[in-house]
Amino acid sequence: MGGPILLVPVAGMVAVLVSAYLIWYVVRQPSGDERMQAIAGAIREGALAFLSRQYRTIAGLAIAVAALLAVAIRPPEGWHTGIAFLTGALASALSGYIGMYTAVTANLRTAAAARRSLNEALRIAFRGGAITGLAVTTLSLLGVTGIFYAYGGAARPQETPLLIVGFGFGASFVALFAQLGGGIYTKAADVGADLVGKVEAGIPEDDPRNPAVIADLVGDNVGDCAGRGADLFESTAAENIGAMILGIALFPVFGVSGILFPLVARAVGLLASIVGIMSVRVRRDDEPPMAALNRGFLVTAVLAAVGLFFVTRSMLSGGGRVNPLYFFGAALVGVVTSYVFLWTTQYYTEYRYRPVKEIAQASVTGPATNIMAGVSVGFESVAIPTVVMSAAILAAYGLGDLAMPGGGLYGTAVATMGMLSTVAYVLAMDTYGPIVDNAGGIVEMSGAPEEARRRTELLDASGNTTKALTKGYAVGSAALAAFLLFSAYIDEVKHLLGMAPEQPYPIDIAQPRVFVGAFLGAMLVLLFTSTAIRAVGRAAQVVIQEVRRQFREIPGIMEGKARPEYGRCVDIVTVGALKQMVLPGLVVVVVPVLVGAILKAEAAAAFLMIATIAGVLIALFLNNGGAAWDNAKKFIEAGNLGGKGSEPHKAAVVGDTVGDPFKDTAGPSLHVLVKLLSTITLVLAWLFVR
Amino acid sequence: MGGPILLVPVAGMVAVLVSAYLIWYVVRQPSGDERMQAIAGAIREGALAFLSRQYRTIAGLAIAVAALLAVAIRPPEGWHTGIAFLTGALASALSGYIGMYTAVTANLRTAAAARRSLNEALRIAFRGGAITGLAVTTLSLLGVTGIFYAYGGAARPQETPLLIVGFGFGASFVALFAQLGGGIYTKAADVGADLVGKVEAGIPEDDPRNPAVIADLVGDNVGDCAGRGADLFESTAAENIGAMILGIALFPVFGVSGILFPLVARAVGLLASIVGIMSVRVRRDDEPPMAALNRGFLVTAVLAAVGLFFVTRSMLSGGGRVNPLYFFGAALVGVVTSYVFLWTTQYYTEYRYRPVKEIAQASVTGPATNIMAGVSVGFESVAIPTVVMSAAILAAYGLGDLAMPGGGLYGTAVATMGMLSTVAYVLAMDTYGPIVDNAGGIVEMSGAPEEARRRTELLDASGNTTKALTKGYAVGSAALAAFLLFSAYIDEVKHLLGMAPEQPYPIDIAQPRVFVGAFLGAMLVLLFTSTAIRAVGRAAQVVIQEVRRQFREIPGIMEGKARPEYGRCVDIVTVGALKQMVLPGLVVVVVPVLVGAILKAEAAAAFLMIATIAGVLIALFLNNGGAAWDNAKKFIEAGNLGGKGSEPHKAAVVGDTVGDPFKDTAGPSLHVLVKLLSTITLVLAWLFVR
Repeated sequence: MGGPILLVPVAGMVAVLVSAYLIWYVVRQPSGDERMQAIAGAIREGALAFLSRQYRTIAGLAIAVAALLAVAIRPPEGWHTGIAFLTGALASALSGYIGMYTAVTANLRTAAAARRSLNEALRIAFRGGAITGLAVTTLSLLGVTGIFYAYGGAARPQETPLLIVGFGFGASFVALFAQLGGGIYTKAADVGADLVGKVEAGIPEDDPRNPAVIADLVGDNVGDCAGRGADLFESTAAENIGAMILGIALFPVFGVSGILFPLVARAVGLLASIVGIMSVRVRRDDEPPMAALNRGFLVTAVLAAVGLFFVTRSMLSGGGRVNPLYFFGAALVGVVTSYVFLWTTQYYTEYRYRPVKEIAQASVTGPATNIMAGVSVGFESVAIPTVVMSAAILAAYGLGDLAMPGGGLYGTAVATMGMLSTVAYVLAMDTYGPIVDNAGGIVEMSGAPEEARRRTELLDASGNTTKALTKGYAVGSAALAAFLLFSAYIDEVKHLLGMAPEQPYPIDIAQPRVFVGAFLGAMLVLLFTSTAIRAVGRAAQVVIQEVRRQFREIPGIMEGKARPEYGRCVDIVTVGALKQMVLPGLVVVVVPVLVGAILKAEAAAAFLMIATIAGVLIALFLNNGGAAWDNAKKFIEAGNLGGKGSEPHKAAVVGDTVGDPFKDTAGPSLHVLVKLLSTITLVLAWLFVR
Repeated sequence: MGGPILLVPVAGMVAVLVSAYLIWYVVRQPSGDERMQAIAGAIREGALAFLSRQYRTIAGLAIAVAALLAVAIRPPEGWHTGIAFLTGALASALSGYIGMYTAVTANLRTAAAARRSLNEALRIAFRGGAITGLAVTTLSLLGVTGIFYAYGGAARPQETPLLIVGFGFGASFVALFAQLGGGIYTKAADVGADLVGKVEAGIPEDDPRNPAVIADLVGDNVGDCAGRGADLFESTAAENIGAMILGIALFPVFGVSGILFPLVARAVGLLASIVGIMSVRVRRDDEPPMAALNRGFLVTAVLAAVGLFFVTRSMLSGGGRVNPLYFFGAALVGVVTSYVFLWTTQYYTEYRYRPVKEIAQASVTGPATNIMAGVSVGFESVAIPTVVMSAAILAAYGLGDLAMPGGGLYGTAVATMGMLSTVAYVLAMDTYGPIVDNAGGIVEMSGAPEEARRRTELLDASGNTTKALTKGYAVGSAALAAFLLFSAYIDEVKHLLGMAPEQPYPIDIAQPRVFVGAFLGAMLVLLFTSTAIRAVGRAAQVVIQEVRRQFREIPGIMEGKARPEYGRCVDIVTVGALKQMVLPGLVVVVVPVLVGAILKAEAAAAFLMIATIAGVLIALFLNNGGAAWDNAKKFIEAGNLGGKGSEPHKAAVVGDTVGDPFKDTAGPSLHVLVKLLSTITLVLAWLFVR
C-alpha cells in the first residue's frame, strides 16, 4: 500500500532530523560557570538515580503482567499481546527518559543564557522542550505503525489493530507508575522543602541552605518531564489504536484507508508541529514569552487544519460514496475543542481573571477561606469543559452521520485526530515548564546577578501557564481517547459474542449489575485520588523530619557556612515515593479486572464509562484548583493585598501547598488512570464475556 | 380494603398521642433563670424570623412551579400534579417548622436541666428531638396515604401512585431550598463568628462578647433542624412513592397489597421507633449518652425486623405463588445496610479511629498538611459505603428474584423499606444534636456554673456523633430512594411510549446522547457543590465585616461592658443566606429539564443515574471529611499533640472551618438534590418522550 501512508515514514524521518538538530543546538550552548554546573550536576544525578530505580521497580511489575497476558490469553494472541505490551511499556519508559534527560541538559544552559538575554534563554528552553515533544510523538507514531505492520498490517487489516491493543496497555501501565511515582516524588520534596524551609526556618524558595532544595529541583524533572512524557505518549498511542479499531467497522466503505487514516493524520500533525516549533521566536527583546508561544501554537493549528483537509479528502471519500467535507468538519471540531480547553484553563488559572482573584481576596480572612474559595473554583471549573466536550462529541458524531449513515462514531474518531494534531507542539510547551523552573533554581542557588533572576522569574511565570495548559489538554485528550477505546471495547465484545457489528449491544445502566459497575467505577476514582494525596503527605513527612534533623545536627547550615547533605534528601524521597507508588497503582489494575470477571462485560463497560467521567471531572477539579491556588499566591506576591510576607500571603501559601499534590500528583495520574482502565478492559474483554 | 393497611391510621394515631405526651413533657420542664431565657428568646426570635422570610421566598417559587405544572401537563393530571406538589411542599415546610420550633423550645429546658443533672438534660433533649422524628415521619406517612386515597386509592391502584409523584416533587423542592438556605445561614454565621471571634479577637466560642454569637446559635436550628427535617420528610415520602409505583408492575401477582406494602412497612417502623424512643434512659448517672442512644436504636431495629417478618408474610405471599421469606430477607438486607452505614460513618469521623487521628497528626506540620489529610480521608471514606450499597442492591435484587421471577426490582424496594424502618428514631437522634449544641451555647453565655458547662460539653460531643451518623443514613436512604424512583421513571417512560412493562427499555450509555447526559449529570453535582461552598464564603465575608465594625465602633464590647448588636448580625446573615440560596437552587431545577427536553428520555435517565452516583459519593466525601476535620480539632482540644492553643490546634481549626460548609451546607443539600432530580424527571417524563 502506497499513497498517503508514506507520509508516516516521511514525517518520522523529518522529526528525527529536526530533533537531532535541536539536540545539537541545545548541547552546543554555553553551560555556565562552575557553581552552576555543580548544582545542575547534582540535579541530573538525582533525577537519573530516581528514574533508574523507578524503572527497575516498574520493569518487574511489567514483566509479570506481560507473562500473565501471554499465558492467560489463548495462543497466538497471548504472546502477541504480551510482546506488544512489553514494546509499549518500553517505548513509554523511553519517552519518559528522553523527556527527563533533555530537561536536565537544557536547564543548565537556560540558566547560563539567562545571564545574557531573555531571548536566548527562552529559545534554549523551548527547543529543549521541543526535543521531548518530537521524540515522544514520533516514537508513538512509529511504534504503533511498526507493530501494526509487524503483526500483519494491511494484509490482515481487520484483525491486526486488536492485536496491538497490548501496546497501549503497556504504555499506560508504565505511564501510570511513572506519573504516580514522579508525582509523589516531586510534591513530597516540594511540600517538605517549603514547610520546613519557607514556613519554619523563614528562608526563601530554592535557597541553597535548604537540604531538600536539590530534591525539589530533581522532582520537577521526574514528575513533570518523565511523567507527562509517558502520559502523552500513551494518549497518542491509545487514540491511534482506538481510532484504527473503529476504522475496521467501516472497512466495507473505506477499505484499509479508514484504518490507516489515524496514522496519516498524526503524521500531518507532526509536520505541522515541527513548523510551529521552529517558528517560535520573540519579536522584540521585551516581548512576553507567552505571546511567542501562542503564535507558534496558532501556526501549528492552522497548518494541521489545512493538512487534515487534504488527508480527509484523499482518504475518507469511500470512492465517492461519502462526503469527506463532513469528516473534515469533525476534525475542525477537534481543533476548536483543544482551543477552548486551553482558553478555559487560562481563565480558571491565571490571575488576570475572576476565579484566581476571588481566591486571593479570600486569603485576606485567612487560610480557611482561601481553601474554601479554591475548592469552589476547582469544582466550578469542570462546567465549561464538560459542556464543550459534550457539544464536541455530539457535533462530531452528527457530522460523521451526515458524511455517511452509521459514520457517527468514526466522526468522533476524526475529531480526536483533530484535537491531537497539535500534540507535539503542546508537549514542547509542557516540557518547557520544568526546564525554566529548574533554570530559575540553578540561577538562585548559584548566586547569579539580580538581572538573571528577574529573567528566569519571567520565564518561570510563563512556564507555570504552559504547564497548566497542557494539563487541560491532557485531560481533554484522555477523555476522547477513553471514549474511542470504549467504543472499540463494545465492538470487541460483539465480535467475541459472535454478533454482527450492526447489532445493538446496549450497556443498560438500569440493570442492577450494570449500575453497580458504574457506581464502583466512580468510587475507584475517588479512592485513587485519596491514596495519591495521602502518599504525598506521608512522603513529605519523611522529608520534613530529615530537613529538621539536618538543621539541628549540622552546625553552620543556617549561616551558609556548612553544606547540607542534599544527597540524603534525594535518597529519602526516592525510597519514599517508590514505596508509596505501588499500592495505588496495583489497585487501579486489579479492581477493573475483578469487576469485569465477576460482574461481566456489560458492567465492566459501565464501570469504564463512569470511571472515565468521574476521572475527567475530578482531574479538572484537581488540576485547575491547584493551579488557581498557585497563582493566587503569585498574585499576592506581585504586590497585591499586602504582598509577600503579609498575613494574606501566608494564607495563600497554605492553599498553594494543598494544591501541589492536587495538580501535580493526583490530577495528572488520573488522566493516565482513565486510559489505563480502557486498555485493560479492551485487552481482557475475552475474560469478561465468559 | 381492610387488613394490614389499617396499621397506618393506627400507627399515625399512636404517634400523634405520643408526640403530644412528649410535647407536654418537654414544655412542663423548668425553663431556667432570666438570663438563660433572654438568650433563648433571642435565638427563638432569630430562628423564627429567618424561617418566615425563607418560607415566603420559597412559597413564591413553589406556587410558580405548581402553576407551571398545572398548565403544562394535560388535564386532569395537570392540576392533580399541581395540587399534589403544593401539598408536598406544604407538608415539607411544616416538617421543617416543627423541627425548628421544638428545638428552640427544648434547648432552653435542656440548658436549665444541665444545672441539675446530666440525665435530665439528656432526656429532655432526646425527647425534644423525638417530637420532630415522630411528627415528620407521621406527616409523611399520612400525607402519602391520604393523597393516595384522595386521588382514587384502591379503586384505581394502578394509576394513582403516579399522580402523587407531584407530592414528592413538592417535598423535595422545599427541602432543597430549606436545606440550602439553612445550610448557608448556619455556616456563614459559624465561620464568620469563628474567624473574627476565635482567630482575630481571641475570645472563646459562644462568648457573649461576639456580636455573631446569637446568629451562630440560630444557625444550628435553621440549618440542622429545619433543613434535615425537610430532607428526611422528603426521603420517606419519595421512597414510599417509588416503592408503590414498583408495586404496580406486580399487580397481577400481589393485587393492591404490593402497592400498599410500603405504607404498612413504614407504619410498622413508626411503631417500632416509638418503643425505641421511649426506652432511652441512662442506667447509671455517669453512663455516656451514646450508650443509651445506641441501645434505643437496637431496640428499634429488632422490633422493626420482627414486624417486617409478619407484614411480608401476610402481604407478599401472592396467594401462595411467592415465597415471602425471600422478601423478608431483602428487608433484613436493608436493616443491616443501615447499620453498616452508621458504623462506617463512626469509623471515619470519630477520633478513636485511624482516619481522624491521621488528620490530627498531620496538623503538627501545619494547616496545609491538615487539609491534605482531611481531603484524603474524605475521598477514602466513599469506598466502604459504595461497596456495601452495591452488595445490598445486588443481594436485594437477587432475593427478590428468588421470591418470584421478575421480582428483583421489588426486592430492592423492600430493602429500602427495611432501611427506612428506623427513620423516626434516627431523626430523633439527629434533632437531638442541635438541641444540645444550643443548650451548650445558652449555658456558656448565661455564665452558668462550671459543672453545667461540663455536662453540656458531654452532651454536645454525643450530639456531634449523632449528627454525623444521620448524615450517613440520609445519604444511604437518598441513594436507595433515587434508585427506586429511577426504576419508576423507566416504567413511566415505557407506559408513555405504549410499551408493555416486560419489554426492555435499555438506557444505552454507549450512545453519544446518553453518554453526554451522564457526563452533564456528574458535572451538575460538582457545579452545585461549588456554588454552595462559595455561597457560604460570600455570606461569611459579610458577617466578618459586620463583626469587625461592631468591635471597632461600639466601645466597651471587649470588656463586656457594652452589649453587641446581636440582631444586626442575625438580619445580615438572613438576607445574605436567602440571596445566595436562589441561584444554585434554580440551576438544579432548570438543568435536568433542559437535558430531558433537548436530549430526551434516555439521556435524562443517564443524567439522573450518574448525578445520583456522583451526588452520593461527593456527599459522602463532604460529610465525612467535614466531620473528621471537626473531630480532629476536638482530639487536639482533648489535650493531645499540644492541646488547645498550640500550633497544631490552630492548624486543626483551619481544617474544621473548611469542613463546615462541606458537612453542613453542600453535603446535606446534595442528598436533597439527588431526590429532587429523580422526582423532577418522573413528573416531567411526558415532556422527555415527545
